Formats: sequence, C-alpha cells, structure tokens
Amino acid sequence: MSEGRIAGFGEIVLRLCAPRDRRLVQTRQLDIHVGGAEANAIVSLAQFGHQTKMISTLADNALGDLAIGELARFGVDTRDIFRTEGRVGLYFLETGSVRRPSRITYDRVGSAFALAETYDWSALLRDVEWLHISGVTPAINAHTAAMAQAAVSVASQSGIQVSFDGNYREQLWRAWNGKSAEILKGIISCATVAFVNERDVNLILGSDYKDCAAAHQACLEAFPNIQWLAATDRQQSGAEHHVLSAILTGRDGVWRAEPCELLSVVDRIGGGDAFSAGMLHGLITKLDPQHAVRFAVAASALKHSIKGDFNIASINDVMEMIEGGGLDVQR
Amino acid sequence: MSEGRIAGFGEIVLRLCAPRDRRLVQTRQLDIHVGGAEANAIVSLAQFGHQTKMISTLADNALGDLAIGELARFGVDTRDIFRTEGRVGLYFLETGSVRRPSRITYDRVGSAFALAETYDWSALLRDVEWLHISGVTPAINAHTAAMAQAAVSVASQSGIQVSFDGNYREQLWRAWNGKSAEILKGIISCATVAFVNERDVNLILGSDYKDCAAAHQACLEAFPNIQWLAATDRQQSGAEHHVLSAILTGRDGVWRAEPCELLSVVDRIGGGDAFSAGMLHGLITKLDPQHAVRFAVAASALKHSIKGDFNIASINDVMEMIEGGGLDVQR
Amino acid sequence: MSEGRIAGFGEIVLRLCAPRDRRLVQTRQLDIHVGGAEANAIVSLAQFGHQTKMISTLADNALGDLAIGELARFGVDTRDIFRTEGRVGLYFLETGSVRRPSRITYDRVGSAFALAETYDWSALLRDVEWLHISGVTPAINAHTAAMAQAAVSVASQSGIQVSFDGNYREQLWRAWNGKSAEILKGIISCATVAFVNERDVNLILGSDYKDCAAAHQACLEAFPNIQWLAATDRQQSGAEHHVLSAILTGRDGVWRAEPCELLSVVDRIGGGDAFSAGMLHGLITKLDPQHAVRFAVAASALKHSIKGDFNIASINDVMEMIEGGGLDVQR
Amino acid sequence: MSEGRIAGFGEIVLRLCAPRDRRLVQTRQLDIHVGGAEANAIVSLAQFGHQTKMISTLADNALGDLAIGELARFGVDTRDIFRTEGRVGLYFLETGSVRRPSRITYDRVGSAFALAETYDWSALLRDVEWLHISGVTPAINAHTAAMAQAAVSVASQSGIQVSFDGNYREQLWRAWNGKSAEILKGIISCATVAFVNERDVNLILGSDYKDCAAAHQACLEAFPNIQWLAATDRQQSGAEHHVLSAILTGRDGVWRAEPCELLSVVDRIGGGDAFSAGMLHGLITKLDPQHAVRFAVAASALKHSIKGDFNIASINDVMEMIEGGGLDVQR
Amino acid sequence: MSEGRIAGFGEIVLRLCAPRDRRLVQTRQLDIHVGGAEANAIVSLAQFGHQTKMISTLADNALGDLAIGELARFGVDTRDIFRTEGRVGLYFLETGSVRRPSRITYDRVGSAFALAETYDWSALLRDVEWLHISGVTPAINAHTAAMAQAAVSVASQSGIQVSFDGNYREQLWRAWNGKSAEILKGIISCATVAFVNERDVNLILGSDYKDCAAAHQACLEAFPNIQWLAATDRQQSGAEHHVLSAILTGRDGVWRAEPCELLSVVDRIGGGDAFSAGMLHGLITKLDPQHAVRFAVAASALKHSIKGDFNIASINDVMEMIEGGGLDVQR
Amino acid sequence: MSEGRIAGFGEIVLRLCAPRDRRLVQTRQLDIHVGGAEANAIVSLAQFGHQTKMISTLADNALGDLAIGELARFGVDTRDIFRTEGRVGLYFLETGSVRRPSRITYDRVGSAFALAETYDWSALLRDVEWLHISGVTPAINAHTAAMAQAAVSVASQSGIQVSFDGNYREQLWRAWNGKSAEILKGIISCATVAFVNERDVNLILGSDYKDCAAAHQACLEAFPNIQWLAATDRQQSGAEHHVLSAILTGRDGVWRAEPCELLSVVDRIGGGDAFSAGMLHGLITKLDPQHAVRFAVAASALKHSIKGDFNIASINDVMEMIEGGGLDVQR
Repeated sequence: MSEGRIAGFGEIVLRLCAPRDRRLVQTRQLDIHVGGAEANAIVSLAQFGHQTKMISTLADNALGDLAIGELARFGVDTRDIFRTEGRVGLYFLETGSVRRPSRITYDRVGSAFALAETYDWSALLRDVEWLHISGVTPAINAHTAAMAQAAVSVASQSGIQVSFDGNYREQLWRAWNGKSAEILKGIISCATVAFVNERDVNLILGSDYKDCAAAHQACLEAFPNIQWLAATDRQQSGAEHHVLSAILTGRDGVWRAEPCELLSVVDRIGGGDAFSAGMLHGLITKLDPQHAVRFAVAASALKHSIKGDFNIASINDVMEMIEGGGLDVQR
Repeated sequence: MSEGRIAGFGEIVLRLCAPRDRRLVQTRQLDIHVGGAEANAIVSLAQFGHQTKMISTLADNALGDLAIGELARFGVDTRDIFRTEGRVGLYFLETGSVRRPSRITYDRVGSAFALAETYDWSALLRDVEWLHISGVTPAINAHTAAMAQAAVSVASQSGIQVSFDGNYREQLWRAWNGKSAEILKGIISCATVAFVNERDVNLILGSDYKDCAAAHQACLEAFPNIQWLAATDRQQSGAEHHVLSAILTGRDGVWRAEPCELLSVVDRIGGGDAFSAGMLHGLITKLDPQHAVRFAVAASALKHSIKGDFNIASINDVMEMIEGGGLDVQR
Repeated sequence: MSEGRIAGFGEIVLRLCAPRDRRLVQTRQLDIHVGGAEANAIVSLAQFGHQTKMISTLADNALGDLAIGELARFGVDTRDIFRTEGRVGLYFLETGSVRRPSRITYDRVGSAFALAETYDWSALLRDVEWLHISGVTPAINAHTAAMAQAAVSVASQSGIQVSFDGNYREQLWRAWNGKSAEILKGIISCATVAFVNERDVNLILGSDYKDCAAAHQACLEAFPNIQWLAATDRQQSGAEHHVLSAILTGRDGVWRAEPCELLSVVDRIGGGDAFSAGMLHGLITKLDPQHAVRFAVAASALKHSIKGDFNIASINDVMEMIEGGGLDVQR
Repeated sequence: MSEGRIAGFGEIVLRLCAPRDRRLVQTRQLDIHVGGAEANAIVSLAQFGHQTKMISTLADNALGDLAIGELARFGVDTRDIFRTEGRVGLYFLETGSVRRPSRITYDRVGSAFALAETYDWSALLRDVEWLHISGVTPAINAHTAAMAQAAVSVASQSGIQVSFDGNYREQLWRAWNGKSAEILKGIISCATVAFVNERDVNLILGSDYKDCAAAHQACLEAFPNIQWLAATDRQQSGAEHHVLSAILTGRDGVWRAEPCELLSVVDRIGGGDAFSAGMLHGLITKLDPQHAVRFAVAASALKHSIKGDFNIASINDVMEMIEGGGLDVQR
Repeated sequence: MSEGRIAGFGEIVLRLCAPRDRRLVQTRQLDIHVGGAEANAIVSLAQFGHQTKMISTLADNALGDLAIGELARFGVDTRDIFRTEGRVGLYFLETGSVRRPSRITYDRVGSAFALAETYDWSALLRDVEWLHISGVTPAINAHTAAMAQAAVSVASQSGIQVSFDGNYREQLWRAWNGKSAEILKGIISCATVAFVNERDVNLILGSDYKDCAAAHQACLEAFPNIQWLAATDRQQSGAEHHVLSAILTGRDGVWRAEPCELLSVVDRIGGGDAFSAGMLHGLITKLDPQHAVRFAVAASALKHSIKGDFNIASINDVMEMIEGGGLDVQR
Repeated sequence: MSEGRIAGFGEIVLRLCAPRDRRLVQTRQLDIHVGGAEANAIVSLAQFGHQTKMISTLADNALGDLAIGELARFGVDTRDIFRTEGRVGLYFLETGSVRRPSRITYDRVGSAFALAETYDWSALLRDVEWLHISGVTPAINAHTAAMAQAAVSVASQSGIQVSFDGNYREQLWRAWNGKSAEILKGIISCATVAFVNERDVNLILGSDYKDCAAAHQACLEAFPNIQWLAATDRQQSGAEHHVLSAILTGRDGVWRAEPCELLSVVDRIGGGDAFSAGMLHGLITKLDPQHAVRFAVAASALKHSIKGDFNIASINDVMEMIEGGGLDVQR
C-alpha cells in the first residue's frame, strides 16, 4: 500500500474543547485533541497504510510530548519534528449545536512553530515522494510563509509531488496584514494537486467565480503544474445536520460524488482534511477518478462520526461505507 | 444598554438531572443546574447587558450558597435574596430522547421560599423599573400567591412595568386546590406585558379559544393595562426535534416570527423563559415589533443549544443567528 | 399482572462499550452494561409486572456477581443462575454515528455458559408457564444447541408455552460450522410463538421469500405448533435515525403497526428483544392483536431512548407513548 | 448460612454527594448512593449470606424505585417496602479531607417514611427471627418514634430478637423537641443487643460515664433483656486517617479488638452500621466473642475502603483481612 | 465585617490541570480553575465577608469571561477588570503524588495583562482602603513591574495600606533578566505588611539569613513602613503529606502557630495565598496577633483540602478548625 | 543513550480497571490500560531513551490495535508484533484501599498470544543486543513455555544478553500443572541478569532461604551465566502506604538502596517492572552499582505515582528524585 513516503509540513496544535453542549464560559473541563491541517491529513494517510512523516517544530515541554505521542500512536514518523523553547499552539473549541455554530478561539501566537528557525529542506525531503501543505502554514506570519514557499520550491525542483490544501483563514492573515493572494500564488504554482473552491480561487486570482467548476477550470489555466483540483460542498440544516458532496477536476474531465446526508454529526473539524487525505490516497494509488472522489467523500463522511481532528478510519471502513455495508449494527 | 433595573420575583430551584440517555432509576450521578422561571429570564436579561436583580428567599445552607453563586456568576445582583432556615426547592429531571419525553419530578414542598415571611415591597422595588413574575410563583401555595399579588400591586401602583409569564403548572395548583383562574386574573390585571397562549387565556377567562391570536385579542379587551402579549408555538417530531415559531400581539397589530427548525435539541428547559427575556429585551429597548419577535425566537432557539436552565447568550450571539451568520464552524 | 412465571434460558453477557462518538481504538474508558437476548426480554417483562426468572450459568467471580446483581436490581429471580469456574462472556461495542454503523466484537468463547454441564430441566421448569429462548443460545456451540433443544422439548412436553426469537448470528454459527437450519428447525418445532422475519424463515426452510408476510404464512404451515409470528422492519437514514414498523401474523389474520420515526437514537441494542418482550406481554395478557403489535413497537421505540441492553420501561411508559402523551416535557 | 430471616425497620434515604475534594458550593455534579442506618446493616448481612428484608416506606416515584432497586441488587427482599405519595428523604454530603471534616446537610423533612401510616407488625414480623432498628428511626418525629416502639414491642413479645443501634442524631431530635431519653429507653428495653457507647448510655440513663466499659456495665444492669453491648472507638489524625478499635460486653465478660489503622479512608459513612452488621453476624452464627468483635472491626475496616453507605463485603473478604491475607495485590 | 474595601492588582490566569494521578502526557482531559496570587487572596477575603475588588486586565474572549464569572461567583467586584484584545494567561499543572512533585508549565507570555496599557491609579484606588499585590506582578515584564510600582506608590501616598506577598518566581524574572532585587525593594518600601521568608529577604537585601525570624528583624530595620511580616514553613514527607507552621513578626514581638499536620493534601496551590488572606483578615479586623497567626494557618490548612486555587472557606469554617470541632463527620 | 536495541518477548494485555474506591461489582465504568510484564519494562526503557521493540502476538481486532497504538505512542517499535485471529488477553483490576488489597481477575485464557505459532527467533533477534523476558511468559501454557525457552536459547547462543524477571504467578502455573521449577531453571540458565527474590530462588532451586542476600549467593553459584541479581523489598502499612527498598547482587559485591517511603500510592501495578527497567538501564549504561540500584528504586517509586502499567518517567524525572529536587510544586 505504501507507494512512497508522504510528508506533511505545518504546525501541530492542541485543541482544547468544551464538552458538547457546554459553552466555554460554562465548562470546567476541556478535552484535549491533537490537530493541525497537515497533521490531520497525514494521520489519515497513515491509517490508509501509507508511510508518512510530519516535518514541524514543537515546544520542548509536556504538551509537545503529548502531541508527538499522539502522532506516533497513529503510525506517523515523528523524528523530523524539531523541539525548541516556547509554547505549543492552542485553539479553544466551543462545539455548536442546534442552530448555534461551533466557534474556534485561536491561541497560537508566538508558538514554537511560528518562531522556528529555517529547515534544511534538501535533507528533510530526501526519500520523500509527496509533500502536503495547507494554506494555514503561510498564514501564520511572514516567516512561516517563507518556510512554506521554500519547502514547496525545493520539493518541486526535486521532482516531489506537492499537494496544497486551501484552508483559507482570514483571521490569521489579517493579524499581520499578510499578502495572501501573492503568497498563496507562489505556493500553488509548485503544486500538482490543489484542494480549492471558488472562494480560494477568487482570492488568489482576483476573480469572481460563483461556481466551483468554473473556478477550477480557471485554475488549471493559471497554474500549468496543477493536474488535479478538488473541493467539497457542504449544506447545513443545523449545526449537526449536513449534506456533503464534492467535485474532482482533472485535465481530462470532471467527476462528482453524490450528496451524502450527515445526520447528528459528532465532529466536523478535520472533515476537509479527511477529504484531502482520501483524495490523495486515490491519486497516489491511481484509483479511477470517479472512485477516488467517492472514496474521498466517504472518508470525510466517516470523519464526521469520529471525535477529534484525526480521521481514525481504515480503507476497509471507507470501502464498507461506499459499498453500502449498511447503517445497522455490525455483529 | 441598561434602561433601568429589572427585578424578578420567584423561587430559585436546583435542577438535579440524570445524564442524557439515562433514566433516573439507572443513574448514579446527577448534574446540578440552577433555575426557576423568573431567574432564568433575569439571567438572560443580564447577559443582554441589563442591570438586574432577583428578589427571593433561599435556605441558608450550602445549596442556597450554590444557587446564589450561580446567579452572581452571570451578573445578577443577589443582595435581595433572603436567607432562612429550611430547604432549597429541587426538581429532578429525566431528559427524554427519541420518542420518550423528558419528565420532571418536583421536590419543592416546604422550601424556604414557600414558607418565607412577607416582603417589604416598597423598599424592594425602589429603583426598580421593571418587575417580572411568572405563574409558578402564585401556584406554590396560598402564601406565595398573596406575595405575588402584593408584589405586582405595589409595582403597578408605583408605575413600575410588570411582565407576567403564564407558565401554568397544573400539578402545583392541584396540590393545594388553588383557585388559579381567580388568582392569575388578579396578577395579570397589573401587568403590561403577558406571555400567554390560548390555554392560559382559556383558563383565566374561562373561554375556549383554539387559536392564540384570537385569545390574545380577548385578553387585550379583558385587561386594559396590557400592551403586549406574546407566545411561542412548538411542534415536535421527536423529543429532541422541534419547530418553534411565535406571535407578538400589540394594541396596534400582530407580528409573527418564521418557524425555526431545532434539530438535536440539547436542553429545552428554560426555552420559554429565554423567549420571554428576548421579548422583554425588545420591548425595553424599543425594538421594532417584527424585529423584537424574531429576536425573542432566536434567543429561545439559542437556549435549546445550551445545557442548563439559563440562556447563556449575548446580544451578539442572537444577532448572528438572526442575520444568518451560518451554521458552520466560526473560526 | 402476573399470569404465571416466565423463564428465560440463555447466556448473560457483559457489554463493554466505548463512549458514544469514540472508536474503540481511541477510548480509555468502557461503560459496562449487562445483556443477552433472553435476559433482555426477561428484564423487560419484569418491568411490565410479570414474575420472571433466568436460567443460566455464570462464572463465579466479581463480573458474574455484577451481572446477577443487575438482573436482581430489575426484579428478575436469579436463583437458577448457576455459578462455575470460568469466564463471563463479553462483547465490545463501538457505537456508530452519522453513517458509521455500530460494531460488535464478541469475546465470549469459552465462557462458563458455553461450557456448562447439563441442566435438570424438569426441576428448573417446575412452576414455569412460559419459556423464552433465542437463536443465540444454540448458535454458541454444539453443547448449548443440545441444551436449548432439551429445554424446549421438556417445556413443550410439559405444556409450557415456548417462545423463540430468531436473533440469527452468522458469526457464531460459522465459528463451529453448526448446522443452523437443522438445529433451529428442531427448536422452532416446539415453539408456539416465534419472532422471525423472511431471512430467518429462508434459512430454516431453505426458501427464498422476499416478503415477511409470505414467509410467516409458510412458517405457519411448516410448524403446526406455532400460533403467532412477529417481526419488526427497520429502515435507517443514518446510524442514529431509524423508522420502525412491525407485523404480527396469527392463524386468524395479520396485523401491522404503523411506522414509527426514531430520531437521534440513543441505543439500538436490545431493540428487538424489547419488541419480543412487548409482544409476549400482549400475548400473555391476551391483548387484542392490533393493540399487541402497537404495544410491542412502542416498547421497542422506548428501548431506543434508553442506554444499555435492558428496556427499563413500565406499562405506563408504553401506554403513554401509544396514547400520544406528547413529546414535550412532562411536568 | 441463613439461621433465620433478619428484618430491618427504618428510613431508606438517598445520599447526594459532591465528588471527593469538592465543596458543595463548587460542585456541578452529585453522586447518588442509597443508605439509611438499618438498610446499611441489612445489606451487609445479606452479603454475609443471611436472608434479609427491609420494612419501610418510600415515595412512589423514580427516586423510590432507584432506592428499592439498589437494595434488591444486593439481595435484600424489598416486598415489605410500602410506596406512597410524597418525597424520598435526602442527605447532601460534602466529603471532608485533610483537616476539614465531612459535613452532612439533611433534607429529609416530610418524607414518605416520616408521614407513613401505621404498620401491621404482627403480619410484617411473621417468619422474622431478628429485628434490627437504629436510633435514627425514633428521632425523626413523634409518629416514627411510636412506630419504632410498636415494632420492637411486638417483636419482643413474639420472641424475636431485637438489636438496637444508638446512632444518636441530636439535630433530628432537636427539630421536634423529642424526649429522646425516654423514647430510647422504651426501645432499648425490648432489645437483646445494643450498639451504644458512653455518650448514648449517659443520654439514656442520665449518667456521666467517661468510659465505655463502665457504661456498658450500667446498661446491663438497667436493661435486663440486654445480653450483648458493643461499641467502636475511633481516633483521627486527619479527615481520612483513622484508628478503629472496639469493645464487646456480654453478661460473661468483655472482649476487645486490637486497634486497626485506617489510612486514606475512602468513605467513612456507614462504618458504624458495618460494625453492627459484623457483630450481628457473629452473634447470630454464634462465633466465639473474641472472634466476633474482631470480625466486626474487620468488617467495619473494609467499609472504610468502599464508596457508598453499604458494606459490599463478603465473609471471605472479612476473613482474609482477619487472617492477614496481606495488603499487596492479590493475583 | 467589611472594614473597608480591599483591592488586589495582578494577573488572573487559568489553571489547566491534568486529573490527579495522570501526567500531562497521559491525559486527554484538563480541569479548568481560575487563579492568580492576588485573585486567590482577594477571593478568600470575600469569603470572610470583606468588600473586595480586583484590578486587572483580561482578554476579551470566552476564557476571559469565564475567569470574570468565577470571581463574580465568589463575590468579588469585577468592574475594574479591563478587557482588551489578546490572550488569557495559562498555566498547565501536573499534580504530583507519592514522591513526584507537582509541576507547573507556564504559558502566560503575551497575555492581555502583560501588554495592558497604564492604569489610572488615583481613580482606581478611590474608596480603596487596602491594596494587595504579589511578587508575581512585577516579575512578568518591565511594564508590569512599572505598573506595580505605580500602584503601590499611589496607594502609599494616599494613605492606603499596602500588603505585599513575596511569591518569588525565578523562572519569570529570568525570562527578561528583570532586576528583581531592585524592583522588589521599591515595592516593599511602600508596604505595611509583607509576606516574605528568609529566601525573599536574602534576595531583596542581598543578605544570607538561614532563619526566618532573623530575616524578618532585618526587614523591619530596612523598611520602616513595614509593621508586620509573616511567613509559613512547610515540611513534606510526600507530595501530599505536609506539616505547616508559621511565624508572624511585628514591631512588638514574634508569634508562632503550632505545626499542623496535613495528610493526603488535595490541592496545595494557593495555600500561601490563603495564608496571606487569613493573616490580612486578622490584621484588618485587629485580631490578637497570636489568634491572627493561628487563623492564617488554619485558613491555609483548609485550602489544602479544597480543589482549585481559591480558598472557598468561611470564617466559620476556619474557627471550627481552630476550636477543634473535630475531624469526624459533622451531621 | 541507545547502546543497542532492547527487545521484550511476552504477552501484551489490557487492564480493565474499576475506578479507585469502587469494587468491581459496584462499578459501571472501566478504565483501560495496556500492560504486560515485558511491555512495561520495555516502555520504561524507551522513556529512558533506549531503542526498543516488542516481540509478541495480538488479536487482529480493535483491542489489539489499541494495545499496539499505546506502545507506539511511547516510542516502542511494534513491527514485530504479529496479528492473528483470536482474543486479546484481559485482566480486571479492583484497586484496593485502606486495608483492602487490590485484586486481579485474569481473563487471558485462549488469547492470540497463548495460541501463537512458533517465532523465527534468529530473524527476530537479528540486531537485538538485549532480550528481556519475565516468568509470566512460560507460565501461560506449555506452548508459551517452549517459546520462551527457544527465545532465550537462541539469544544466549547469539551472544545477546538475556534478562529474566521472576514475576512468579502461581495461579497461571497451577491452571495447567506446569512444572515451573524445571522450566524456569531452563530459562534462567540462559540469563545474565535475573530479578528474583528468595521466594523465586526457593522455587527454582528447591531451597528454603529466608533471606534474599543468601538466596542471591546460591543463585550465583547455581547459574554460572548470571552476573547480576536484583530484588525489591516492600513493606506495607496500608493498601496505599508502602516502604520500598532493594538489593543488587553482583559477582563482586552487594549494594542496597535506602528504604523509600511511598505514601498515598496511586498505582502499584508495574512497580516491579519499573524497577527492572531502571536496573537494566543502569547495567546497560554501566552505571556504578550503588547508583544503579538507587536509580532503579527511584524509577520504581516514580511508577507508584503514575496511573497505568507503564512507568512514564524520563531519566530527568528519576535523577531529580535521587538528587532530592524536593517534594513541593516545581514552577
């Protein structure tokens, strides 16, 4: 199953989260989960049987140990996570319900990752065949933006496939007045796979598409390296009641996955990263595009039933969902 | 935001509640929440930025301390809560699910509030601009019924606005054969705002309206002091799946809020009090009636997503819901 | 209410269950519940006011004590549960959600029940008027299959009514290559009531019915002792969103219960046993067949709102549901 | 092991208890335990293999069901517990630690037991060979005092052995100005076994003994029916660090148990009732007095390691402690 | 009881704390408590009946709301806590046990308090009669050091009593190379009461006392404003087994409290602040010095039995401990 | 720090454990921990920075995944853990307290490990420099006894150091009448390090030593391969109050560690394995023998403060304890 080593580069953060149905101001207890856009995708790929590693920097304290332990526990190689003085990036989550949306309060300023020295990319990417990065990494500050650009440039030049997941976080960019369009354009130029929808594309290209398919076509034209574009579409009738569908755009066609109804969602965070991981699995193992986009949506659907940022689901789990193993108890 | 001090008069009770999906007979653990129809409304008004206080009596023991602490924590002035020997009123809640309704077992007989001596209303209402009371207070026993009447009479004579929330509790009235129609008529005569639906009106007027709008019109005629009447309508397809709408009747017209679908409700208790508080906020701050009834329904909808009797929601929270801030994660 | 003593014969197992929304691999805590197809039905009948007992064997250790205590707690006579060296049968449950089904991992091989010596059926069934057994008991191994056959044979010869609940567990039969069709045919021949659907019937008769009603008719012909056949039908739009209906077939007609929507199901395990217990209550107390099948579906619906294998619901609880007591809070 | 049926008469109460190391005012969660001086002793005797029953009255609601279920779960016959309208007696416990003592807030006024009608003692005591009662029962109000006297009088006249456990609760007696000395004298006159120390004796006899042994001698003289007197002595160096010893006085001598060091006590409530049950077991099964008092202290010591009011300990558990099975892990 | 308004100035932080007996790296859940050296003392004084307020700055987010709510809940006036953009200071606590010490990981860099603009001290201290500050405030950074000096200077000039609690945190000072001796000397010069031991004094005076009493004498000479000096002494035989004693030095004499054995300590954090609050209560209410130092040690001893940073103990609680109310259950 | 790869061979089991202060019969919840004598030692060595792996067999189900994940999480290489059909070995733990000892109920019969096929030892031990095995492995059944002997024989012949930890489990040997003396003699003959006390030695040699030092000398004579023998001595004054000391015997002398008082022990299980791991660390890194035995006792002492079977403690943690870093909060 492991057609090469997949690396992620990005910040690993701790989610501190009030119990479902408690607002932060009411709670006296927080659950801890480990996450981060790239780490989420990498963990999911490890569950699918791929050889994976994370490249990152974490504070050299018990919280950093906890985060590393959790990645190791799910089979990710953690030896290229550097440890420095400083703090671990946090985010506080108040889980929504009924018609009240979930709310994230970031507390990641000044983290060890944000302040980390430069990385020796040629050494770190030796033996890597695929590099995955998200739009969160360059959004943190000018320094991480430069790190992200360096990573994808070295990768691209070394013939390593680069996948980029939009994950646009306006709040982060605004905090330092980062020139997001310009920076993201630099990164996406090095990518062969991009997870972007019309909003991401409009931001990067300064366009005004209302439709994801059209935006994808424009993207294919603007970025000659890109071979595949994919995006999910999410409709919600409540904080916990969603319908998920997706589109995959290649140079040879467009494929769509049927809408999938997600009732009583357990945890929506990481649903996009689970989709990206599912799609990367499909592309890396050269699944038929139609199968690949269905696999990715099913993977994401599974994530919505699992607490925490990681999609703890195997290929078998995903295949059973696609093949209609049924919703009743499996004995 | 504080156009005057709003006071509530009524019993503060502790909710002892089995975990969701446990029947009382199965549980070994109870969650504690603080509630009471008036306290719930007053806490919500405090979250909306109003100066508020509770007038009440609580047992002088650790449970009374706990109740007072919880009100103080949410910004309510608790200095007019008297402490006496006795017990704190309790109610045990078994939360329903699927098609099994929630069930309340009252254990409030003989509470410090039920036995409390008379109150010095002119002193207590000095500086108060609005007095809120519910139908629970006069339902407890003949003594509390007299206290309630005294409170609204003094208020009304002093030019203090009085709001009355029906909250008809047949079980309580029946326990002492209280003449509910007569007593409630006396109280509602002093009110300028009443939260009643056709069932409340029929009880008080001995009428037989099937329709809330018609009952409201009759009420306007019967009680010349009343300026505003409001009520919610709730439809349920399961213990946790509701649709909520509302009507606001004034002397100049009738306004309705659109039905609002509430899926996977977290806690329905206090939903009516949250509606009343939302409406009072609208009336006190002189919102446009259409906006006011929408605000009240949105406030009540929010309550359904929050554990406990109190609606821990700010004006911002309510406005985002009205303005369609979306149901997906807010980062 | 007790028209005679009802006995169940079968294994009592412990459910060790990850918290809702945790996969087994993620959890650090397991909830313990006591179950077993026959025990579940017997406990429900005890809640309906019947005199009941369980005939079984349990390991003589703290886990066996725990299981016995839980049956005693709900009013079942446990004096005919034998204690031997060995282990208590376990099953691990990962509760499904959204579109991920619940998953049971059995760990019951070599349990005290599976290895138990023969039972003195004429002594054990003295004073018993009804014996209930499920298809799980003969599925465990050749020895328990023989025990089950002995039990129903002695019962049948002694004029004791026998009810049989299909509960087909392919995984168990396959583990020892048990000849399920032949064995189940022997047992069902002694029964007057059988809870089977078209899949059970097809297995036993080697037929190929697509429809439960037709299968029931075939069953009535094949097994002259049988007076009543019943089955539920379950449709799911999510792991926690079901629609339940049922059919009751007698020698004089067919009765159906209206589909019942079950939203946000709490615990589906034991839903079938709760249906059987509801139906047995109806048959034993000679309810009108239409009422009986409605009672059974309502009982099963209630079970879906209750955590654990047992249906902790009284006749009052069921009747309120049938009579439409409403879904809103009962005060 | 069952040399006759042992009955207890007294109130069954629910303990609602803050988690260890939380004050009541801090907690948001309460653990539920079932207790009551007589019920505690009766449950312990049931664990020792005796046939037992409770005679009592409980409110006919879910809390009453819970209490009955818990007694049934531990093998006590609950068919003579009457159910009436009303409330279940509660007590709130704040568990002490370090140098802060545990604190009980009673909330038992007006319970179903306190208001229960008269009992048909000759019917209830038929087949009973031993009746156990504590000083709590007559302390509740004049009515329960009369019930207690009636119970022991009928028992005594019927040749049933009566044991009485002092359990003096000044707070209860004071609430209704009960003439405790006179009432308790009436009850103790009917007893053959009494668990009293010098403080109890001084209260009843109006004496001023400083020493338990002397008080016991006076008691033997004052009450010719009494054959055995027993009492524990407790020294504490912290809320959770105790030393326990005991004295047993018979008409033929005095026996003492060696002091037993109890470090890091888990739950001290019910420790006295566990001692009484241990001693009753010794007397009923006619153990050597020296062995009996050691057994009783060991039983009480075990209780200090068990959460809740009941001593969930078998004869084997007690014997291993006496015989020095060791304090290290038993594999 | 309120001889004037007492204000505290300092940072309010959240404690995120692994459950007892879990290392941070093992835990998946954190308990939240609110603390801060000055807030702890102020909350304790509020429990003793004093009028209190906190002067501080907190981030304007849900965590800040939570902290403010918790202070309000315990009766502290929170209107002078300013809200700004930024983060709430955190500290992670791994509670020690057996021979493993508790360990604090600070995460407070860049908090709203650390970055807060200047305060209008003459306005803020109007009506204040006592200002309490700790050595943590000036240790944060040069800015907070200046704020602290300004506060005590204005207070001192306005005739407001100033108390200073050493709370030396080497880790904080070292992070910015703060000149601790010089800065603390400036602050202590304005104080009339100081909680310092020989280590604090040696740091400030550059001396080398081995003995607290001698250090106190030196301090009295060095700082003519100081009227009272107090310090605790703690000996430990395990992470949870302590012996606590204390010394109070005045210009007229020295008073000592007897050593107090603290077994199975629940929470040692805030024990020093509880001592300071107890002593301040004694000084403010002009207790006899011997009584005052005993009161302070008893208050601190109580804190060791209470979870969280705050000493939730009333004067009654403390007095019962001093007067030997006993360690056994209080009914 | 890693002077070569250390391998453990033995069964990995799940501990299912009632909360502290609950008996198994009372609990409704079990905590899951992963353990096994060899795994415990190997995890501890991994925390000390050694390269480690486990050789074992686990059922190919979610429980097996959980166990493997937990080892990976703490840095152990799990690629040589084979997966087969079957079950995961369990043990149920009731944690003792006060004077009630902890009690283990094994449920490991028929586990995947017990039934595992033969291992290819020359392949598995390639690159291994140290093999650790305990007396539990040969005690399971004749097959595992043969596996254990094969492992140590191959290791010994290949010049790999073998350490053997007695861990005598009478209950396991008795279940299959295993000839423990003979089998253990065969294994210990291949070892260079043995963790045995006088009881182990007496069993193996058929001797009757009362004293560990003498038994160690006899062992050195009987087994010429052995270079080091070590053992702890444990005294208890309560289930949670211990004193621990140890002896290390080499061919050149005997070294003892000072007794270490362990108050309010959190978790004693795995304390012996933590000692072995500490000693192995000392021997592998060639610490001075006196330092090594102190290090091992300190490591074991730390384990007593940590929940679960694994000693989650670094070299720094151990060194701070040895060097007297103090018992008070480390900030």
